[in-house]
Amino acid sequence: MSNYPILEQINTPEDIKSLDAAQTEALCAELRKKIIETVAHNGGHLSSNLGVVELTVALHKLFHSPEDEIIFDVGHQCYAHKLLTGRFEQFGTLRTKGGISGFTNPEESEHDIFYSGHSSTSISAACGLARAKKLKGEKGFVVAVIGDGSLTGGEAYEGLNNAYEDADNLIVIINDNKMSISQNKSSLATSLAKIRSTKRYFRSKQRFRAILKHVPIIGIPIRNRIVKAKYALKGALYHSSFFEDLGYVYLGPVDGHNLTRLNDILEIATLRGEPCVVHVETIKGKGYAPAENDPEHFHGVGPFDITTGQSIKPSGESFSKAFSDTICSFAQKDKRICAVTAAMPTGTGLEHFAEQFENRYFDVGIAEQHAVTFCSGLAKNGIIPIFAVYSTFLQRAYDQLIDDISLQKLKVIFAIDRAGFVGSDGQTHQGLFDIPMLAGIPDINIFAPASFEELSNMMYRSVYKEAFSSAIRYPRGGECVLPEGYQPDGKDYSVFESEQKTDKLIITFGRTFGFAYEAQQRLSEAGIPVNILKLNKIKPIHAEAVRYALGYDAIWFYEESMKIGGIGEHFHILLANEGYKGSYALSAVEDTFVKPAEVSEQFKEFGLDTESIVKDISNG
Amino acid sequence: MSNYPILEQINTPEDIKSLDAAQTEALCAELRKKIIETVAHNGGHLSSNLGVVELTVALHKLFHSPEDEIIFDVGHQCYAHKLLTGRFEQFGTLRTKGGISGFTNPEESEHDIFYSGHSSTSISAACGLARAKKLKGEKGFVVAVIGDGSLTGGEAYEGLNNAYEDADNLIVIINDNKMSISQNKSSLATSLAKIRSTKRYFRSKQRFRAILKHVPIIGIPIRNRIVKAKYALKGALYHSSFFEDLGYVYLGPVDGHNLTRLNDILEIATLRGEPCVVHVETIKGKGYAPAENDPEHFHGVGPFDITTGQSIKPSGESFSKAFSDTICSFAQKDKRICAVTAAMPTGTGLEHFAEQFENRYFDVGIAEQHAVTFCSGLAKNGIIPIFAVYSTFLQRAYDQLIDDISLQKLKVIFAIDRAGFVGSDGQTHQGLFDIPMLAGIPDINIFAPASFEELSNMMYRSVYKEAFSSAIRYPRGGECVLPEGYQPDGKDYSVFESEQKTDKLIITFGRTFGFAYEAQQRLSEAGIPVNILKLNKIKPIHAEAVRYALGYDAIWFYEESMKIGGIGEHFHILLANEGYKGSYALSAVEDTFVKPAEVSEQFKEFGLDTESIVKDISNG
Repeated sequence: MSNYPILEQINTPEDIKSLDAAQTEALCAELRKKIIETVAHNGGHLSSNLGVVELTVALHKLFHSPEDEIIFDVGHQCYAHKLLTGRFEQFGTLRTKGGISGFTNPEESEHDIFYSGHSSTSISAACGLARAKKLKGEKGFVVAVIGDGSLTGGEAYEGLNNAYEDADNLIVIINDNKMSISQNKSSLATSLAKIRSTKRYFRSKQRFRAILKHVPIIGIPIRNRIVKAKYALKGALYHSSFFEDLGYVYLGPVDGHNLTRLNDILEIATLRGEPCVVHVETIKGKGYAPAENDPEHFHGVGPFDITTGQSIKPSGESFSKAFSDTICSFAQKDKRICAVTAAMPTGTGLEHFAEQFENRYFDVGIAEQHAVTFCSGLAKNGIIPIFAVYSTFLQRAYDQLIDDISLQKLKVIFAIDRAGFVGSDGQTHQGLFDIPMLAGIPDINIFAPASFEELSNMMYRSVYKEAFSSAIRYPRGGECVLPEGYQPDGKDYSVFESEQKTDKLIITFGRTFGFAYEAQQRLSEAGIPVNILKLNKIKPIHAEAVRYALGYDAIWFYEESMKIGGIGEHFHILLANEGYKGSYALSAVEDTFVKPAEVSEQFKEFGLDTESIVKDISNG
Repeated sequence: MSNYPILEQINTPEDIKSLDAAQTEALCAELRKKIIETVAHNGGHLSSNLGVVELTVALHKLFHSPEDEIIFDVGHQCYAHKLLTGRFEQFGTLRTKGGISGFTNPEESEHDIFYSGHSSTSISAACGLARAKKLKGEKGFVVAVIGDGSLTGGEAYEGLNNAYEDADNLIVIINDNKMSISQNKSSLATSLAKIRSTKRYFRSKQRFRAILKHVPIIGIPIRNRIVKAKYALKGALYHSSFFEDLGYVYLGPVDGHNLTRLNDILEIATLRGEPCVVHVETIKGKGYAPAENDPEHFHGVGPFDITTGQSIKPSGESFSKAFSDTICSFAQKDKRICAVTAAMPTGTGLEHFAEQFENRYFDVGIAEQHAVTFCSGLAKNGIIPIFAVYSTFLQRAYDQLIDDISLQKLKVIFAIDRAGFVGSDGQTHQGLFDIPMLAGIPDINIFAPASFEELSNMMYRSVYKEAFSSAIRYPRGGECVLPEGYQPDGKDYSVFESEQKTDKLIITFGRTFGFAYEAQQRLSEAGIPVNILKLNKIKPIHAEAVRYALGYDAIWFYEESMKIGGIGEHFHILLANEGYKGSYALSAVEDTFVKPAEVSEQFKEFGLDTESIVKDISNG
């Protein structure tokens, strides 16, 4: 008999509406089973998806998608949604080439309203969708499902702040799972916590009393304030006035794993005729013990053994690990070193730093804008901040990089992880924009290590030798193939020449060097000598690197980045300024978004792998 | 006798401390006089600066700058601060070449902690400064002065959300001037308004009652909630729990023009030993009737007559006006057209649209991130949103442009005003990054009109002919010099050939074409024929435009933009792909921030004016 007797019958969300209570409960169990099995095999986001199973079922039982539009903030809570909207059969292809995306994707289904991969955008999008319905006189609700972690991102607040009075078709569901990607220390978490505990109330009452003693002159006004505050705080125990202050009807909190309660509160929200915030409490990893016990590990995870929860292939050495070791050793010797993360301590490898140097470690929540300006403030007063961030998420802080870092001429270090192709996460997570983003900004150095040792050396150079800010961009995972006994020379560029003389030159940087090097070997065996110019500091480009390239008639530039605004285009102008008249072929990612696939497949797709390089140069 | 007997004596903030009450009042009057006189002559920000005179004096009377660090969010409220920190003598050079900057500038004074020109960053910076003091065991407070308008920007909230428990050296002063740059409709304004009125409380109480009738099943829980809510709302009349929820001691509101009250409340803030929010109420334009009556007009203003308040030279025709006429005529015929602004209705010329099409007009506050995602939501449901925004402020939404616009393949129109050099506003406001920012993003067209008619045509093409999103970037002010009877040809590129044959080609776009055209005339008189390729659609570049350029041996590209990541570098690669072997000289702004000066001076400085072009090509 089938493992999924009910789930198999759900071809559209409408099929859920006919299920009775027992069948709906059983459906939730099947969804969990399918999600765990699939993620255990393909890898993916587990904790967040297990947490919203009942919520997703309740939403599709009450609302009519796609007339009612349901948006999931950061698509990584959308697996149950995908399984309930006609994608059960293909779900096994999750995050594989040509398969189901790990995030919502409008090309997959009319029930996926938006591509959503980055945090805190759902309320703004929902405001737009809801407003458009009003303007066109169309029916239907717009529901934004947003985790408390995403609420730490400024845009969520900008969105909350812009639901106009008559947005009675807008419902914001706060999935309060008591843990964003990392335990986030920021005060909004506290504010939500107040709903669950009265501690803060008593603590602050004592604090107020204590202070009163010391400030007699204003004793009376302040005491009055406390009398009021008492009610405010008591009120806050019952519901956070935070959302009411922003003009929403606040409903909740409700147990996010109780289908009846969920259904009741969602029904109320549809009846209120005002923009509503529904506060739902869920447990990350719900229903799978290993994930409940360590939700952060299972937030985004590779293939694992279901019975033990153990990863099938241990992660092994990675640039993130090399970064972690480096920053810890620096911090050991230098008290000025601080580390900042936007809710990514594990992904960036900062968890060890956090344990060893708690008072110099700052997890600011999913708030990259704040992180960058905060670093600027730290640097202004003599601290050396290192912001470890994924390439794709740094995009959130472009304006701050220009005005608060570059213009201020302060020294902040950006450890840019997941730079380049990232594999299965796909379109919204590729690290291909950081070069076009950073290269145009004055006075920010950009380094591109190909080995762990280079990463460490470039960190040292950025912290202690460079005048201004630096970005060190390194890929997800480990080192590329390197020449035997490869030793970084600490220069801005390195040269790898073949024994025979040649007029052909490959220019590249970062891990792409590994493929260029393999290609060089293969070509030399084939009697086609080619030299390699490996750029270590890719912005600014050293004048000698340009002069070296001038000695060649044919240049191939390979760049794991977007082409327009990348280093390849810039290097070409530098050559033109010196009167270069030879040929110049640039391979990079041009004007497209890279779909999920293995990283190796992505290198191949864009002509950056060994094969492609060999072919280019054989034909050239 | 001197006009400024007291102000003249203030060489450092310490000099204020010895003044008695009467002298301090008199000082405020002198500051106002000096600010009004200077702005009337040089132009600048008036309303906001007049509003914070007493606040600035009170701050410098109590705190010890620079040991205590005072940051002004959006530097345009810093004039009084500059006059009190040793810049009275030079103040007449405000916003002129080599003169005093209109924003805080660390190169000018140790009392200017940061360059600040963009909104909502002060709290994040203050968190960093305050944290650094803690880590280094240094004394002193960090005070962030932020207007209620800036509180509508998400980063302000990220900052508020990240003041850690022991930040007892952090004071956030909210300058609640009841009007941000524009009257902003968002709910935070409402939330602050609650402090001043009980209306909302009664309104919502009736609303709750009404609803109770219709939702009997949950009558009891909701009624309970109201009982609590009552206190919460009453509490809110006394102090907004919004800030308390975020973990601050909330003090205020206080009359921001009453020096005694200000001093008292600031003193309390220094004694609390906790992070404080001090709520100060001020009047924009205070002390100058024309500005008090029309604070938005006097927010940023050109030279004017002090007695009448009338502008000395009327603004005349501008691209902003042309945009305004165009969007209104479109909206007249097409109900799908909506306009969005991030608190810049006047600057972008949307105020007329706002009057005529109120329900299709959205001022979202200083929230560019929300604006872009909101537009995406509108577009998804069939609306055609036009986001009018200054080039420099669009930087705030880089990530949203990638993930919420480009990736979604929706049609949103970006009317990018103040693109290129902006003159006196200087470093933080130049519109030089929008091309590097947008060019690397897939599927966003970029148009660069040189005339009003071109702007209108390009808008039409973007709205009705293009498949995806488009950006139309146009400069501050009016048209450049154009050929007599200049008629846009509606093509992606236009050609202006001299009578004699030539192997020389100028490539340019936007208003720089005016200088190129003048140069062409001058050169032809000098017997040096040169042709011009004017790009109208600068992304993507039409293949025929590249083929046309291939016919020349010497190419000069003039670009009013940052060089790295600009169109000039990209065009060069397109030429290389076709085997171009001629010379290629690219003039643009390279790796620097452009200081305040006349726009014409800025063109000259970067070799983009007629003179420079003539010289380049004569020598070439």
